[in-house]
Amino acid sequence: MNAPHLKHADIGSFPALPAQISIREVGLRDGLQIEKPISTAAKLELLDALVATGVRRIEATAFVSPSAVPALADAAEVASAVHRYSDVVFSALVASVGGAARALDAGMANLEYVVSAADGHSMANVRRSTEESIALVPEIAKAVHSAGGTLEVIFAVAWDCPFDGPTPPDRVIDLAARAVDGGADVLCLGDTIGTTTPRRMVDLAQPIRLAHPDVPVGLHMHNTRGAALATILAAMQIGITDIDSSIGGLGGCPFAPGASGNVATEELVNLCRDMDVATGIDLDKAIDAARLAQSLIGRELPSGVLRAGPRRDR
Amino acid sequence: MNAPHLKHADIGSFPALPAQISIREVGLRDGLQIEKPISTAAKLELLDALVATGVRRIEATAFVSPSAVPALADAAEVASAVHRYSDVVFSALVASVGGAARALDAGMANLEYVVSAADGHSMANVRRSTEESIALVPEIAKAVHSAGGTLEVIFAVAWDCPFDGPTPPDRVIDLAARAVDGGADVLCLGDTIGTTTPRRMVDLAQPIRLAHPDVPVGLHMHNTRGAALATILAAMQIGITDIDSSIGGLGGCPFAPGASGNVATEELVNLCRDMDVATGIDLDKAIDAARLAQSLIGRELPSGVLRAGPRRDR
Repeated sequence: MNAPHLKHADIGSFPALPAQISIREVGLRDGLQIEKPISTAAKLELLDALVATGVRRIEATAFVSPSAVPALADAAEVASAVHRYSDVVFSALVASVGGAARALDAGMANLEYVVSAADGHSMANVRRSTEESIALVPEIAKAVHSAGGTLEVIFAVAWDCPFDGPTPPDRVIDLAARAVDGGADVLCLGDTIGTTTPRRMVDLAQPIRLAHPDVPVGLHMHNTRGAALATILAAMQIGITDIDSSIGGLGGCPFAPGASGNVATEELVNLCRDMDVATGIDLDKAIDAARLAQSLIGRELPSGVLRAGPRRDR
Repeated sequence: MNAPHLKHADIGSFPALPAQISIREVGLRDGLQIEKPISTAAKLELLDALVATGVRRIEATAFVSPSAVPALADAAEVASAVHRYSDVVFSALVASVGGAARALDAGMANLEYVVSAADGHSMANVRRSTEESIALVPEIAKAVHSAGGTLEVIFAVAWDCPFDGPTPPDRVIDLAARAVDGGADVLCLGDTIGTTTPRRMVDLAQPIRLAHPDVPVGLHMHNTRGAALATILAAMQIGITDIDSSIGGLGGCPFAPGASGNVATEELVNLCRDMDVATGIDLDKAIDAARLAQSLIGRELPSGVLRAGPRRDR
């Protein structure tokens, strides 16, 4: 045989996976934030479709500057509508103390406070340095906890910044410790511009998890370079079970050329279903919701499962 | 904390990966076969660009019916040109004894003989049953070996058939044994319509590898539902190192609605590079080749790495 096939590596075994993961649907927030605004009524129609999929954590909106993010200017109206679903945990993203106050006033008690792990992205996003942003955690945590809510700190550009290049892992590890010290109940690592891959994800997430064994650490992956599901597979293999996704693969990053959306909810559900990892989400209903999102947005969304449908199971 | 985050699963460790894999570039064959024909000169320009990437296995063309696959009607001309590259192993796909004879006459000694593992696809593709196709392996193997070449048997629709639904794994395991008995030197499992996922891949590939420890078993994945890189990650974790990919994600399946191309070479190289899995392929040159393929084909190719570029490494 003259072809240069490699000798078989040792035949390994496929690692065990968690029995279930907890998907957070972020299409209404990250998915819509850079789109042309759609009506509040359209958002609530999409919300209905998302709840029908079975997902039990939904990031409903963000309380950020309406001039910077006009698509989410109706945050308070969306927030006032979510309480019709008593069995879904809703959350909202905030980027400032004022945004947190507005979210709490609107009845959203579970907040995600985003901190850009690199100064370049931080300045572009919120006109504050990373240092200035992380210093606000205690104040926001206090307000959230007073309202009986949960504070999650999400680190944007946790692996790479479109302005500053690779984010040093030690910097994120340190920020994570400061967030926990400041009162964060949950952490999330954001691959904002879709550059990370399984090993780089593991190399950052593991030390943070080991340092804070009682703090859930989730992932927020963009599929810009096609590696999001591979990275999430690796995450599940190391026991990470809080995963963000966006219906249809909606979303993007205004500062990342060529960036595409979040990993598509239905692609993640399709992957998990075939591996007996429970998500609680009905694949057909997720595809229905993705189709609705696509029609509301008016452009083709990047999800392959939306385009091609589920596989035949018999 | 009132959000239903799951308790951390046990913190596992990320499995070891092979030090290197051997990528076979299939863009000139699988990638082009359903496209509007491009000129032989254009193919050879793309071939130059592919060789420049550093890839050392290239499926150059297919010797199949020119009326069924007009895009590859110039197989003999392409074959006559590949010998300018002495350090690349070229191969051609065939689907019949006659095609194998033509390939060997054209100087291609390393052949891939495709056998559809399900009758529905087999009849649509070659108007023969799976049984009729597998029965031809010994005759083709004899011809290939007489020419000093290597015979690989590729099982199309190894997991799912667009006509027959799921392909029973035992059927493929049996076909693999018959192929090896008939003289196949190498096996390859094809996810023709892009439906498989990591666990289903493992559940089929492992018994075949264990039954034939001296026979390389490769994978040919389509990224139709976004799961190709995740499946390849799982493959590397169990020691599979022969992986097909297609520049730019070129390709498709004429019988699979919504099917997209093969996993993109540059997305696979990008993934591997970040995990210290050597491919021998230069990522920037792979992106150059993908860009060329895109311009020759005249439509946007689905590769995220082509669209967004590599991450900044400093």
